[in-house]
Amino acid sequence: MATHVINPTRFHYTYGVQSEGIPIRSGDTIVAKTRDAFGMDETGAPMPEAYMQQVAGVQLRHSNPTVGPFIIEGAEPGDLLRIEIRSITLNRSWGRSRQGPNFGSLTGEGPGKRMLYNPPVPEIWYDWQLDLERQVGTLQLPGSHLQMAEVPLAPFIGSIGVAPAYGHVEMTLTAGEYGGNMDCPDVAAGTVLELPVWTRGAYLQFGDIHALQGDGELNGTAVEVTAEVTLNIELVKGRGAAWPRLISPGDIMVLASTRPLDDCVRIGQIELLEWLVTEYGFAREEAWQLNAQVGSMRIGNMVDPTYTVVSRFPRRYLPR
Amino acid sequence: MATHVINPTRFHYTYGVQSEGIPIRSGDTIVAKTRDAFGMDETGAPMPEAYMQQVAGVQLRHSNPTVGPFIIEGAEPGDLLRIEIRSITLNRSWGRSRQGPNFGSLTGEGPGKRMLYNPPVPEIWYDWQLDLERQVGTLQLPGSHLQMAEVPLAPFIGSIGVAPAYGHVEMTLTAGEYGGNMDCPDVAAGTVLELPVWTRGAYLQFGDIHALQGDGELNGTAVEVTAEVTLNIELVKGRGAAWPRLISPGDIMVLASTRPLDDCVRIGQIELLEWLVTEYGFAREEAWQLNAQVGSMRIGNMVDPTYTVVSRFPRRYLPR
Amino acid sequence: MATHVINPTRFHYTYGVQSEGIPIRSGDTIVAKTRDAFGMDETGAPMPEAYMQQVAGVQLRHSNPTVGPFIIEGAEPGDLLRIEIRSITLNRSWGRSRQGPNFGSLTGEGPGKRMLYNPPVPEIWYDWQLDLERQVGTLQLPGSHLQMAEVPLAPFIGSIGVAPAYGHVEMTLTAGEYGGNMDCPDVAAGTVLELPVWTRGAYLQFGDIHALQGDGELNGTAVEVTAEVTLNIELVKGRGAAWPRLISPGDIMVLASTRPLDDCVRIGQIELLEWLVTEYGFAREEAWQLNAQVGSMRIGNMVDPTYTVVSRFPRRYLPR
Amino acid sequence: MATHVINPTRFHYTYGVQSEGIPIRSGDTIVAKTRDAFGMDETGAPMPEAYMQQVAGVQLRHSNPTVGPFIIEGAEPGDLLRIEIRSITLNRSWGRSRQGPNFGSLTGEGPGKRMLYNPPVPEIWYDWQLDLERQVGTLQLPGSHLQMAEVPLAPFIGSIGVAPAYGHVEMTLTAGEYGGNMDCPDVAAGTVLELPVWTRGAYLQFGDIHALQGDGELNGTAVEVTAEVTLNIELVKGRGAAWPRLISPGDIMVLASTRPLDDCVRIGQIELLEWLVTEYGFAREEAWQLNAQVGSMRIGNMVDPTYTVVSRFPRRYLPR
Repeated sequence: MATHVINPTRFHYTYGVQSEGIPIRSGDTIVAKTRDAFGMDETGAPMPEAYMQQVAGVQLRHSNPTVGPFIIEGAEPGDLLRIEIRSITLNRSWGRSRQGPNFGSLTGEGPGKRMLYNPPVPEIWYDWQLDLERQVGTLQLPGSHLQMAEVPLAPFIGSIGVAPAYGHVEMTLTAGEYGGNMDCPDVAAGTVLELPVWTRGAYLQFGDIHALQGDGELNGTAVEVTAEVTLNIELVKGRGAAWPRLISPGDIMVLASTRPLDDCVRIGQIELLEWLVTEYGFAREEAWQLNAQVGSMRIGNMVDPTYTVVSRFPRRYLPR
Repeated sequence: MATHVINPTRFHYTYGVQSEGIPIRSGDTIVAKTRDAFGMDETGAPMPEAYMQQVAGVQLRHSNPTVGPFIIEGAEPGDLLRIEIRSITLNRSWGRSRQGPNFGSLTGEGPGKRMLYNPPVPEIWYDWQLDLERQVGTLQLPGSHLQMAEVPLAPFIGSIGVAPAYGHVEMTLTAGEYGGNMDCPDVAAGTVLELPVWTRGAYLQFGDIHALQGDGELNGTAVEVTAEVTLNIELVKGRGAAWPRLISPGDIMVLASTRPLDDCVRIGQIELLEWLVTEYGFAREEAWQLNAQVGSMRIGNMVDPTYTVVSRFPRRYLPR
Repeated sequence: MATHVINPTRFHYTYGVQSEGIPIRSGDTIVAKTRDAFGMDETGAPMPEAYMQQVAGVQLRHSNPTVGPFIIEGAEPGDLLRIEIRSITLNRSWGRSRQGPNFGSLTGEGPGKRMLYNPPVPEIWYDWQLDLERQVGTLQLPGSHLQMAEVPLAPFIGSIGVAPAYGHVEMTLTAGEYGGNMDCPDVAAGTVLELPVWTRGAYLQFGDIHALQGDGELNGTAVEVTAEVTLNIELVKGRGAAWPRLISPGDIMVLASTRPLDDCVRIGQIELLEWLVTEYGFAREEAWQLNAQVGSMRIGNMVDPTYTVVSRFPRRYLPR
Repeated sequence: MATHVINPTRFHYTYGVQSEGIPIRSGDTIVAKTRDAFGMDETGAPMPEAYMQQVAGVQLRHSNPTVGPFIIEGAEPGDLLRIEIRSITLNRSWGRSRQGPNFGSLTGEGPGKRMLYNPPVPEIWYDWQLDLERQVGTLQLPGSHLQMAEVPLAPFIGSIGVAPAYGHVEMTLTAGEYGGNMDCPDVAAGTVLELPVWTRGAYLQFGDIHALQGDGELNGTAVEVTAEVTLNIELVKGRGAAWPRLISPGDIMVLASTRPLDDCVRIGQIELLEWLVTEYGFAREEAWQLNAQVGSMRIGNMVDPTYTVVSRFPRRYLPR
């Protein structure tokens, strides 16, 4: 039951089987400092070149650097990784957000592509002031001269995942069966994230902490911050899942990522039904009927390349 | 300020400019008994043929009968109809739900079309027992022999709308700029629904009360019930909107309906930004940034022909 | 076998059961002059107010005026209308096209909605010169100072449909099970269009002739022209279809309209398989396999409110 | 100008920067034998285990084995790879096709996910007889006892691509900015495919030859065959593109892959406009107008994980 305290000097911009990693055991705890989505640390210092991952001699984009990978001893495809999120401690008194051309679902969507004939929107940066004591944030609104109320912070992990199956190495901006940049506010302290293992060692990575985010992360970024994150890792042998699952005090959830949102719903709901039938003993059609009346959903992220929808079932309706 | 108490003997299955209607004035109150989505009344009696709308000599489908239309004196295109939902009183101790072939987003979608090669799912009816005193529901689960907990009821109006623009007459199963079958649990007692007026007289209709429904109404029907509904109607001259709006004690919301869900989000979010700028004085880009961090969304209905997404902004962040 | 020669002074902007119409019999022929999508006649004269349809006292939009409705004696829901397109004779030496804000799939989409945060695109009009003798068109390109080659014209009917089921009255800008604004270049002289009948009398309308159009009608309008159209109408009793069908010398086709395009494909392909099985004796799975290897598709229209995809099967692979 | 004749004993199931490869120079020619999508060779022998790629000790799926990678000397991100397809010579007298559960757009979609509540479709294999002399194919239809006509073969390369940007390694079943499993019948002998280079060396791979395929590859597989493929490779320095481009005697084309199809169209059309403006001197809005009237599109592949649409502009309308 070791505790690994990490102050990383190496960051990855892709999910996958990396050339090196940090070996850990089931039951171990990880305490790691993360940089924000733009690569800055808690002092506002940018990412040193030397810290960045290169692939095939190409310097990768600075977005969403992740710590790790953590290589879990004995993890095999078909296993499940139980990740207990013990704490997400913000360690910077400000957060940055950005609107930019061709990124985000209300404008052209990236990366690297324009899907609109219209002129792009201008890039604008926003600085949020964070009161870490009272856990509230404020934003100046000079353009409209309005005074806004304080917003309670709700920190969560934007990007957390393992190496995808078939040796994919996706950039940390995407999400899928392996987790990744799901940007779901539900992935907060006090929950347990279950990720399917797709490769030997699993190769867990995480980063991109958000102090605050609305559903859909609709202008492309949340209130991007740095934090110290504490995770406890447990390997569950031979109990697979097709998609990431999340367990909170109130709900069991499936996090499904694809496009369009309609298919995120279809994937997540079918996986949720499988879960209710396999592990809780519901008859399939009754699980469908019950969930159709008491289930809820949340649009986590509607930012390219893939969107994420959370499908929820309340635990109080699970058999004891 | 008249009160119109209606025990209807005439039901409409389309939204639009009907051959006759009930004239009312701004400020009037409507108290009306509604039938359930399948046409049954509070005693379980089916819809008499004589009660049904016919169009061009064709007997319309029995789904989602609505009461009305209420013709609002002086209503013109460009006006807004403020509908205060004062009460939704369930008046039957049971509700019905149904799974059926080619209806609902996890299977083929209707009406009138099959989009799958797979064999269709069987039709199954479910009867929910409702305790109107304690406002809770229960469902027997014979297939899985599980005992389920009671579910708190959350009644709302599934289908409410006016005549669409350009003289559309849509069946009451669809939703759009005119409202309609939005199936959003937010449309509950204690809220104010604002519908754009598209034709002279507006032609308000409503029905399809749900005692309970999960997000998405994912197997095609909610817990379908009858009720006595009390609405207060106010006509706001010359203050238009592009889509239905909803005001609750906590939020202002836009209800956007189309397919796929992605476009419901885009439509609703842009309309929400217009609202924040026009009526509350936000600078447009600041409204976008702020809503991206504090806004939320809800998938109301993901059942053909159109889906509905609710885009929400918390009222506590509106300028006083 | 009457021939009805129409020089219309009344135009409709909605599909549906209109207050009046022109009665015809199965076997009759219609010869009618149509106005262009903008309401202009062959001399360039705009639509007189008196010619326009009004609904509920609201003057309807000037887009896509249609002639008719033609009420077919004895037509009942479940019948099929066989429309032989005998000729489409252009009668104006110029055509107009337009790019506009929030219309067309590469920008925000209308009508009545903006789905983008970006600034809208400017409105620009384009005049195409048409040589009716040689059936070619040319466009001046002053902005790029390029000289373009002549383009062979390929006239077709952009908008043709019957009254929708359940008494819908859609504006003539939309398409669905009833036909409508499908904007498919395949709907040309020498083909037979089969429309399902949804109401007593069918109520056939048509207009919106295009001299030329690319797949998708991607900037919102084609080369919009006037024409004299000759159609022969035949009523086929009791042989229904779920969607419009088109028969050309080379192919049988299904025209499916919804959003997104993915679902147009699903609807059209399933309907095409039903057709191959029911009328041509294929085993269903063999029809699927064969069509998967020899079938083709065409994106007719990708302009809001609904898109249209043509699913084609070559007649030479039909059993003799 | 070397010619590399390859009879491969090593196959890759992912696109990306592989551990080894075959170095070539700009101007070189590749002559390689490919296996079919199921891993069989021209004798029908299955893929030996030893021939298969492993990633992180995981044996990859047997679908779409590709030859290569060919590492192009001097290729850098921002360059363009011009691939002249000189010949695709089929070398087996039969092809296999398959319908399977949860694969293909008319049923649930894979891999690894179920998006439907319905029971899955059965797996069925189809053997096509190919007359290589006369280049025609036939399929027995025992289920319907119909005699079908011969179908002219139209061989093309189903899967061809380079290593994706940011070090992705996608399985060869997907498609994107790097090419991949685009399954477009246009990628045939006599055309030139231009692929953007995303990593040093480019890492070109190809395979999955189809003797015949309809638009959309709608039941999940084409008529899958083996072949000898001859490609001439040319490196164009510093002339990038955002998406794969194809040049045939008649058209210039962009191949865009994502989901839903609507977004394939948007991406492809915007990229096509950029191309017309940048390389051919059109004013942007005139390119849009002209392409809207003379352009065409083709749905190449509508099979998960990503779909592909080909956007075409006729070369005869390009300035000389």
